[in-house]
Amino acid sequence: MTRFRLTVEFDGRPYMGWQRQPHGPSVQGAIEAAVLAITGEPAAVHAAGRTDAGVHATGMAAHVDIDRPFDPFRLGEGLNAKLRPDPVAILNVAVVPDDWHARFTCIGRRYRYRIVNRRAPLALEAGRAWQVAAPLDADAMAAAALVLEGRHDFTTFRSAHCQADSPVRTLDRLSVHRHGDAIDVIAEARSFLHHQVRSMVGCLMLVGRGKWSAADMAEALAACDRQRLGLNAPPDGLYFTGAVYP
Amino acid sequence: MTRFRLTVEFDGRPYMGWQRQPHGPSVQGAIEAAVLAITGEPAAVHAAGRTDAGVHATGMAAHVDIDRPFDPFRLGEGLNAKLRPDPVAILNVAVVPDDWHARFTCIGRRYRYRIVNRRAPLALEAGRAWQVAAPLDADAMAAAALVLEGRHDFTTFRSAHCQADSPVRTLDRLSVHRHGDAIDVIAEARSFLHHQVRSMVGCLMLVGRGKWSAADMAEALAACDRQRLGLNAPPDGLYFTGAVYP
Repeated sequence: MTRFRLTVEFDGRPYMGWQRQPHGPSVQGAIEAAVLAITGEPAAVHAAGRTDAGVHATGMAAHVDIDRPFDPFRLGEGLNAKLRPDPVAILNVAVVPDDWHARFTCIGRRYRYRIVNRRAPLALEAGRAWQVAAPLDADAMAAAALVLEGRHDFTTFRSAHCQADSPVRTLDRLSVHRHGDAIDVIAEARSFLHHQVRSMVGCLMLVGRGKWSAADMAEALAACDRQRLGLNAPPDGLYFTGAVYP
Repeated sequence: MTRFRLTVEFDGRPYMGWQRQPHGPSVQGAIEAAVLAITGEPAAVHAAGRTDAGVHATGMAAHVDIDRPFDPFRLGEGLNAKLRPDPVAILNVAVVPDDWHARFTCIGRRYRYRIVNRRAPLALEAGRAWQVAAPLDADAMAAAALVLEGRHDFTTFRSAHCQADSPVRTLDRLSVHRHGDAIDVIAEARSFLHHQVRSMVGCLMLVGRGKWSAADMAEALAACDRQRLGLNAPPDGLYFTGAVYP
C-alpha cells in the first residue's frame, strides 16, 4: 500500500460539497470514481477540509491509499484524464508516509473570500465571488477583522450543524485587501468551525457598509450566541487555498 | 437623441463573437435586445473592437443612440436586469457628445492574454485561459516581445480574413509577466489587425518553449508572410481590457 497526497483545484458550483453524498455529485465522489477507474480499487479520499456546496478550492490537500504500485506523476495524469470534463483538477501528487493524514496531520488551513463591490452583475465571476452593490469601506473592514484574530470562543460564527467538540479556535490571520472593485479576505487558522469564514465575512460586510462598527463585531464575538450573527456570506466567494503540514 | 457610452464586461464562451450574426448569439445582439426591451427602440450598438468567438472583455467600450430621454444610471440598471442571466454586464453608462464614436474616436486599445503554464487541466479557468503544459521561459518571451514593439508591417500576424486597409500598425506595448503558474501578456496599440494579439501570443509561446528564438520572431515579422506564423493562440485566454479616448 502506498499513500499519495493530492493537491486539488475545483470549481464548487456543480457539487453538493467536498463530501460524498448519496443524492448528488461531490468532489470526493468524483475523485474516488477516477481512482477506481484507474486502479481498479475502491478507495476513500480524505481531505484537509470538507467544503460546503458551491465553495471552491485552488489548493485542497487530500490523500488516498492505493495497493498497486503507481508512479505519482502518472497517477496524477491518469486521474486528470478520468476527471475530464468535471471541473476538478489534480495539481500535484506525492508519496507520503503511511501515517500522514490530510486532515489530522494538517496544522494550518487557509481560505480566501472574494467580494466584488460594484452594482453591475458578475459576467466573468458569476458563482465565483460575492457581488455586493453597496459601497464598502475596506479599511473599516480590515480594522474590524483584527477584533476576531486570536484565540476566542467563536460560537457566534459557527453553524448550528457544526460537529466540532469545542467552539474555541485560534484565528491566526483575518486580513482585508482591496484591489479596485475586488475585496479579498484572507483567513488562516489551524482549523475552522463550520461556516466560520462565511460568518466572519458576512459580518465584515456589515462593517464595510457602515451598519456595524468594530465594537459591534467585538460584542457579537463576546456574546457567544449564533443569534447575534449579522449575516452569513454566500458560498460563491469562498476558496480553500492551502493546507499546511509540519 | 442622446448618445450613451457603455462599458461592458462579458464572458465570450457562449457567443459567436461581439458582432451580430444571423445564425447564433452575439454580445452585440444581446445588448441590442436589452436596449429594445427597455426603450422600445431598435438601436445599433457599436464597439471599440469586434472580438472573436470565445474572446472575453473586462472593459469593452461601446455606444448606443436612444431617442427617449434616459438617466444613464437607470439605463445601466435596466440593461443589466434585461441581460440576466446572460454573461454580459454593463459596468458603466455615460452621456457622450453626438459625434463621439466607440470605434472611430478610440485612440488606444488594450488586451490581456492569460496563459496558465501547468500540466493539470483548468478546473477554475476552463475556457478563460490557455493551458500550456510544457514549461515556458517567461523571461525569453518578454525579450522576444520587444522585437514586435513599434511600427511594423504585421502581415505575418494577421488573419487571412482581416479587412484592414493596411497591415502596418504601431504596437505601443507587448509585455510578459509571470505570477506563479500564470503568464499574462499585455498588448497596447491604437488599433490591432484581426487575430494580431493571438498570433503574437502563439509565437511568444514557441519562444517560451525554446522552439523559437527572438531572432526567429524578428525573421517572421520581417517576412511579412502569414505562412511564417508559428502558431495562433486559442481565443480562451484573450480579454479586451480597455479602450482609450482623447
